[in-house]
Amino acid sequence: MKLVRYGAVGHEKPGVIDRSGQLRDLSGQIADLAGDAFSPASLARLGALDVDGLPVVPGQPRLGAPVGGAPKFIAIGLNYADHAAESNMPIPAEPIVFMKANNALCGPNDDVEKPRGSTKLDWEVELAVIIGSRAKYVSEADALDYVAGYAVCNDVSERHFQIERLGQWTKGKSHDTFGPLGPWVVTKDEIADVHKLDMWLDVNGRRCQTGSTATMIFKVPKIVSYLSELMTLMPGDIITTGTPPGVGMGKKPPQFLEVGDVVTLGIDRLGEQKQTIVAA
Amino acid sequence: MKLVRYGAVGHEKPGVIDRSGQLRDLSGQIADLAGDAFSPASLARLGALDVDGLPVVPGQPRLGAPVGGAPKFIAIGLNYADHAAESNMPIPAEPIVFMKANNALCGPNDDVEKPRGSTKLDWEVELAVIIGSRAKYVSEADALDYVAGYAVCNDVSERHFQIERLGQWTKGKSHDTFGPLGPWVVTKDEIADVHKLDMWLDVNGRRCQTGSTATMIFKVPKIVSYLSELMTLMPGDIITTGTPPGVGMGKKPPQFLEVGDVVTLGIDRLGEQKQTIVAA
Repeated sequence: MKLVRYGAVGHEKPGVIDRSGQLRDLSGQIADLAGDAFSPASLARLGALDVDGLPVVPGQPRLGAPVGGAPKFIAIGLNYADHAAESNMPIPAEPIVFMKANNALCGPNDDVEKPRGSTKLDWEVELAVIIGSRAKYVSEADALDYVAGYAVCNDVSERHFQIERLGQWTKGKSHDTFGPLGPWVVTKDEIADVHKLDMWLDVNGRRCQTGSTATMIFKVPKIVSYLSELMTLMPGDIITTGTPPGVGMGKKPPQFLEVGDVVTLGIDRLGEQKQTIVAA
Repeated sequence: MKLVRYGAVGHEKPGVIDRSGQLRDLSGQIADLAGDAFSPASLARLGALDVDGLPVVPGQPRLGAPVGGAPKFIAIGLNYADHAAESNMPIPAEPIVFMKANNALCGPNDDVEKPRGSTKLDWEVELAVIIGSRAKYVSEADALDYVAGYAVCNDVSERHFQIERLGQWTKGKSHDTFGPLGPWVVTKDEIADVHKLDMWLDVNGRRCQTGSTATMIFKVPKIVSYLSELMTLMPGDIITTGTPPGVGMGKKPPQFLEVGDVVTLGIDRLGEQKQTIVAA
């Protein structure tokens, strides 16, 4: 299934994309796509619905983040060997973990705010993992049982706030709209191998990032297992898993986003996003 | 008002402590003490209730964290000059910000888990600020308008996970039960000067931390204003504001918590907590 949330900010309704690409309304079936809506039982119930019998949603409504009320928005840093190199950082011996404020989440095509005082606004195309079941001390072998699906995420970052303002990356990762997610959550049954997905990101139509989830240092089962030893993962938690090479900070000279710039990005089988940069 | 949540884990009900110290049930008045329950309008409504007419809660029920469903659990590091010194860290030029997983929150007297592999489990008595209104780019002068009240927090920390496992403190700050909060939220109208509160923490009855909110480097208005420039604060967000000297890591030799240890702590006018360390 491709699960979406559509409608005005703060009033999103649940929906599903049918085989022809048409948006269908799920609000008669489930209150929201949040928390336990991503449990195996809930996904099984939604998966058994007759999608073609659901109401067609007319027009082209805005898409919101396809996960509502995410308890946590966790991120893995420097998880692609080439990106670590362009950042002048050693390949980490274990996953680097930080948190983004969960209200950074926004729709895949929403405007992205350039914060006041921002001088180094940057982009990061990433594979996001959506947790389906509470996970604490789960093994790598069992980890995927706790995953509901995957989505595209732009881990928008302000490098000055992140790196040059006294440590702890969360400072440069948490502004409103710093987490475009979607267009949809693709349930894991539709992704045969999550570590064979091409990914890309363009700024104003010029290719900046090209990569593949094949080159992730720590794979999804390792990340879920590792995190579950440090904190309990909850249904609806989002884990964005790091970015391939080509971020603005790594260019020579560095390149950062300005108001009016347009960022487009996508991951094979998971869809595409488009954001315009606006002033906060 | 002293606002509490009482009952079994995950099934807490809202309550209020009356002038005689008796717990009264608020569940006929409000569904939960979460999110917008901490807005100025909601607190004004609760403040106008005839508390002595509310049902008395019999017995000694467990107290949960007095804030339900906190969207974010934000923490300020090294915010007391003496604690920075004992940690061999310079006094920061601007607030150090990190995030704890919100499911680290627990009741003030719940057992605290020692995670598997933990060797350096530590304590930190802290003043926590509870946000009442959405705050984005608010000035220091206006910042307290966005605060609902205050509570005691033990910012439980695993120093090996926090410091020695590749950066980003969130790793050692996020295990379940690493955020005992309460016993209650004291609304800000009851605290004449939040920067004149004595604070203390004992381990197995021996005094470890003695301090006062008077020695905070960055005061509450600065912290709220500063954070609101980096991320939007939401009703029910919790900000724990740093700890005075006397943590285990700073002792010579260092001292850490073992299973069976008992930690008691408190802040003047905000109440006391007691936790026993158990194995995860």
